[in-house]
Amino acid sequence: MKVDGTSYRTIWLADDGHTVEIIDQTKLPHLFKVVKLKTVDDVARAIADMLVRGAPLIGATAAYGMALAMRADNSDENLKAAYDQLMATRPTAVNLRWALDNMSGALDAVDFERRAGLAFTRAACIADADVEICSAIGDNGKALIEGHWNAKGKRGKVNVLTHCNAGWLATVDWGTALAPIYKAHDAGIPVHVWVDETRPRNQGASLTAWELLSHGVDHTLIVDNVGGHLMQHGLVDLCIVGTDRTTRCGDVCNKIGTYLKALAAHDNGVPFYVGLPSPTIDWTICDGVADVPIEERDAAEVTRIWGRTGKGKTGSITISPDGTPAANYAFDVTPSRLVTGLITERGVCTASEEGLTELFPEKK
Amino acid sequence: MKVDGTSYRTIWLADDGHTVEIIDQTKLPHLFKVVKLKTVDDVARAIADMLVRGAPLIGATAAYGMALAMRADNSDENLKAAYDQLMATRPTAVNLRWALDNMSGALDAVDFERRAGLAFTRAACIADADVEICSAIGDNGKALIEGHWNAKGKRGKVNVLTHCNAGWLATVDWGTALAPIYKAHDAGIPVHVWVDETRPRNQGASLTAWELLSHGVDHTLIVDNVGGHLMQHGLVDLCIVGTDRTTRCGDVCNKIGTYLKALAAHDNGVPFYVGLPSPTIDWTICDGVADVPIEERDAAEVTRIWGRTGKGKTGSITISPDGTPAANYAFDVTPSRLVTGLITERGVCTASEEGLTELFPEKK
Repeated sequence: MKVDGTSYRTIWLADDGHTVEIIDQTKLPHLFKVVKLKTVDDVARAIADMLVRGAPLIGATAAYGMALAMRADNSDENLKAAYDQLMATRPTAVNLRWALDNMSGALDAVDFERRAGLAFTRAACIADADVEICSAIGDNGKALIEGHWNAKGKRGKVNVLTHCNAGWLATVDWGTALAPIYKAHDAGIPVHVWVDETRPRNQGASLTAWELLSHGVDHTLIVDNVGGHLMQHGLVDLCIVGTDRTTRCGDVCNKIGTYLKALAAHDNGVPFYVGLPSPTIDWTICDGVADVPIEERDAAEVTRIWGRTGKGKTGSITISPDGTPAANYAFDVTPSRLVTGLITERGVCTASEEGLTELFPEKK
Repeated sequence: MKVDGTSYRTIWLADDGHTVEIIDQTKLPHLFKVVKLKTVDDVARAIADMLVRGAPLIGATAAYGMALAMRADNSDENLKAAYDQLMATRPTAVNLRWALDNMSGALDAVDFERRAGLAFTRAACIADADVEICSAIGDNGKALIEGHWNAKGKRGKVNVLTHCNAGWLATVDWGTALAPIYKAHDAGIPVHVWVDETRPRNQGASLTAWELLSHGVDHTLIVDNVGGHLMQHGLVDLCIVGTDRTTRCGDVCNKIGTYLKALAAHDNGVPFYVGLPSPTIDWTICDGVADVPIEERDAAEVTRIWGRTGKGKTGSITISPDGTPAANYAFDVTPSRLVTGLITERGVCTASEEGLTELFPEKK
């Protein structure tokens, strides 16, 4: 998507054909900084230190890490070492393992001298495939936004509420929840986005707001407490959120607080959609509340907040008294009964096993 | 309540019998500082700059402001001047007007030389009356907590979730939502409080956490997004919140985000109670969502966050990109259908006109 009028992806090759370039997302929204990754060590650090984040982008970055490793040393030993090094960066990321297995399996099967070339080609394919999926989610979701626009007699704006960051920064391009918004905006449909700041890490205030601002999409930042009030007063036409994991029965695990917005949407008759790339579906479980383990993170993410202190500097402040403990649950599960529809790359379906297996019959 | 083992109210007279002392709440939780108010100007500044906040405390402080004014100059001109000066500090606060009218009416009726003495006596009565109301709410709510404790077979802890600050800092003592918790704690019932940080002003993280820590009540700070997840997993026994205004039909206007917690409580069968001093009931309206105007405050409260920067200093940081607009709705309305009960000084009733007028038959 666009940054000050220039189109970007979150990862690309420099003109030399092998240096990998990324946006340092830890500096956003206060500084837009492109970082060059020249070695597998650079890539491992970029993933571990969260310069790149979001499951699809982590996968694509790791794939390029394997390519850089093969360019430096195409031996079997180095193939295994690179795999192990990259796998250790974010051990629980599903896409990371998938991308590394995909790369490793293909590279294992070819002659040493072909490995580097194949690895760069294959990493580019992984990135392009993610763009394809997100673009298709965007097209399918855009139709929903267009439906609201038509239903409003093409007057005013279509107001979409989103939570956390499921935008292009979390993927290679387009995003998942935000892809329909970008597609609608680019098609001339007037969209306005309510951006939940999304405590504790504030990905809404820092990343989603920056994305929308940079691409020129009308938006307003709100605290996470506000969505219910807006929906009570008819100020939200639809909600679109992303997901970290969705069960075969349509229960949606996403950033903490998503469930509260889904409850408010349900209570006020506001449609609640989830942008869902199919690799995010966990076909092995049904009951999300019972069966998805919820990660508890460092309490300091709750008690300390990072931002810009003035004069271009960044830093953090403590908001609570010393001695007050904090709990930091990272995700929650929205039961399928509160979800109007799942926007996948193959189309929109109900949040149910029937809906999902109709679109993905190979999983029946 | 207690601070490091010493009992405090939020407002009291110094040993000289006329200097008013308060806690500077703008410094909490990072600094506990007592401020002396010696003139009506001091009082007006303390209210306007929010060194004291919370409707009941504002009323009591303004009453003492009238007393200090009468001590300096007991003329009719000064009586009127003090009234006007204090009224202008927080023009929308209902208790402020009530306290000033109460003081002014009484002082108007007596001889000049009796005014100062009467004013101090009457201000003390206003403060004491607030303590009485809050203490009674505490006793009535404590019985509910005790019920949960008994239902759990007196095992573990009773987990209470609260939002914003409706504690003793918002009143003269005890608080409204927190009064039942203090009463239960003091009676030896093991209570654990989930404290919503309560964006945008973080009154939960700064004031409620500090109160509970200072009094020795077990508590855990959470972001506002977490409550639903906790309730899904049986980690909340009951919710108790305060209210800024409750309609005769039981719709509850309170800090933004309260409605989302009430939805989650309802969805999970968790009782949702409101600590409600009767002066906060607005007997003139029924439908809160339609008829309570919601204040919109400065967007900078959303984009900038205040806290401790380190080495004892305080300051603020910006969390969003320049150019991103923010909206700041201060309150929302929880429909009565989501409220299990209203805890008033006369007892607990259903959130309905029938329930309220049974306790307050004079309003039928």
